[in-house]
Amino acid sequence: MALNENRGQLVIVGGAEQKEGECKVLREFVRRAGGIKSRIGIMTAATGLPREVGEDYTRIFERLGAEEVRVIDTEYREDASKPEYLEFMENATGVFFTGGDQARIISTIKDTDLDRAIHKRYAEGIVVGGTSAGAAMMPDIMIIEGDSETHPRVDVVAMGPGMAFLPGIVVDQHFSQRGRLGRLLSALAQQPAVLGFGIDEDTAVVIQGDEFQVVGSGVVTVVDLSEIVHINVDELLKDEALAICGAKLHILPDGYRFNLKTRKPVVEQMAQQAA
Amino acid sequence: MALNENRGQLVIVGGAEQKEGECKVLREFVRRAGGIKSRIGIMTAATGLPREVGEDYTRIFERLGAEEVRVIDTEYREDASKPEYLEFMENATGVFFTGGDQARIISTIKDTDLDRAIHKRYAEGIVVGGTSAGAAMMPDIMIIEGDSETHPRVDVVAMGPGMAFLPGIVVDQHFSQRGRLGRLLSALAQQPAVLGFGIDEDTAVVIQGDEFQVVGSGVVTVVDLSEIVHINVDELLKDEALAICGAKLHILPDGYRFNLKTRKPVVEQMAQQAA
Repeated sequence: MALNENRGQLVIVGGAEQKEGECKVLREFVRRAGGIKSRIGIMTAATGLPREVGEDYTRIFERLGAEEVRVIDTEYREDASKPEYLEFMENATGVFFTGGDQARIISTIKDTDLDRAIHKRYAEGIVVGGTSAGAAMMPDIMIIEGDSETHPRVDVVAMGPGMAFLPGIVVDQHFSQRGRLGRLLSALAQQPAVLGFGIDEDTAVVIQGDEFQVVGSGVVTVVDLSEIVHINVDELLKDEALAICGAKLHILPDGYRFNLKTRKPVVEQMAQQAA
Repeated sequence: MALNENRGQLVIVGGAEQKEGECKVLREFVRRAGGIKSRIGIMTAATGLPREVGEDYTRIFERLGAEEVRVIDTEYREDASKPEYLEFMENATGVFFTGGDQARIISTIKDTDLDRAIHKRYAEGIVVGGTSAGAAMMPDIMIIEGDSETHPRVDVVAMGPGMAFLPGIVVDQHFSQRGRLGRLLSALAQQPAVLGFGIDEDTAVVIQGDEFQVVGSGVVTVVDLSEIVHINVDELLKDEALAICGAKLHILPDGYRFNLKTRKPVVEQMAQQAA
């Protein structure tokens, strides 16, 4: 457990994680939340089917041995002030945001008592996880919605405030499966952030301290615009194609690590040391 | 006209180019093939509908003012030795390969008299164009077929000999529209080539000498593996996810140029000079 760290861990899942059998990604979430001593809140704000989705994750987390599992159902914004939820959060060791529509997470939870309680516990070291919409909401500025399978243009994505667990980075999910390179680049081009994570289905970015590790069957595509030599976003009308010259691209499968401060894969540092 | 160059030009189209109205991409092909003095052979080898597709392109090229347009229909391999086709090639100023299945281009034309005639005329300076399958066949080693919308793995693509107009580079088409970053990276990882072009629909890479220019409504995604610091392809079984660290990525819309020798966008050189 990471309760002794300055900050908690994030488990950011690209959607469609395995829910039968090995459940590698969700297993990693529960392990990091405290394993058989974990007390997990399932945040169903994003979904229109909170009962069904809540029951699914309850079954999985209980099967994996979590000590206590609680569905935090915030269909209405006032639900996010319920004393029973706030009380549960005081001793929770992990929260997991389900998929659905990320805009619903913002409209029902952001800046509520529950939001403050989760951020307080996150600062104390608990694990915050989320899948799909629950991944998209992690940054300070998130992708609200946008087109897949298109080249980058300003009007490909709508951006807005996220839940700010992971500032300064753009997260996109279902990345390889929905062909979202153009969408992620469109999002990155429109804001100061230079680092984008394209997270595949059944795959997670697990962040602890300054490093993340990849867990799951797909890859994480890291796009880094910090050293670009040209971008034309200031010259464009919104339906015109973006130019971006000199971006960096890292494709990271299960087990690979990446340093968020140096913006380099950890294997890269090893290769340089060896050379 | 480029007949005075050491080598001809290539017009490599990502598929689904506009066929009514402005026809920017096909217009560029005809202009470079000699405009109203062009004599164009339409290569229908890839398609199962040679008559219909041949008639479509004949109509377009004639509307744009080509002096002579001829459908080169090679349904069977022996068709590629027809004297009338070889005779036409002697004075052709451009050939255009239609879409369909790139494997059919190889099986009916490669290493035939017609293939030699086209390469001879290409060396003399004519324009070789192609769209979709007609783009895929351009390299010496081409993508025969493969999965879209997936993360990079060795078994994502099948590679095989191409028509070798553009050696040392991997070409993929319908790039943004079909989410083919994983497929292009999978192809690049398996061969010595380090440069990949992902060409969008209604978009062309126009190569002359050491430079290409982008024409059309989408973008060309250039992936450059020449400076990667890590790749795990030698350690993998075929269904395991690839790792690639330190690739370069350039997104180039209409009008942007790229130098094939330095592997840099021409804007980048300008930016460096200015700095």
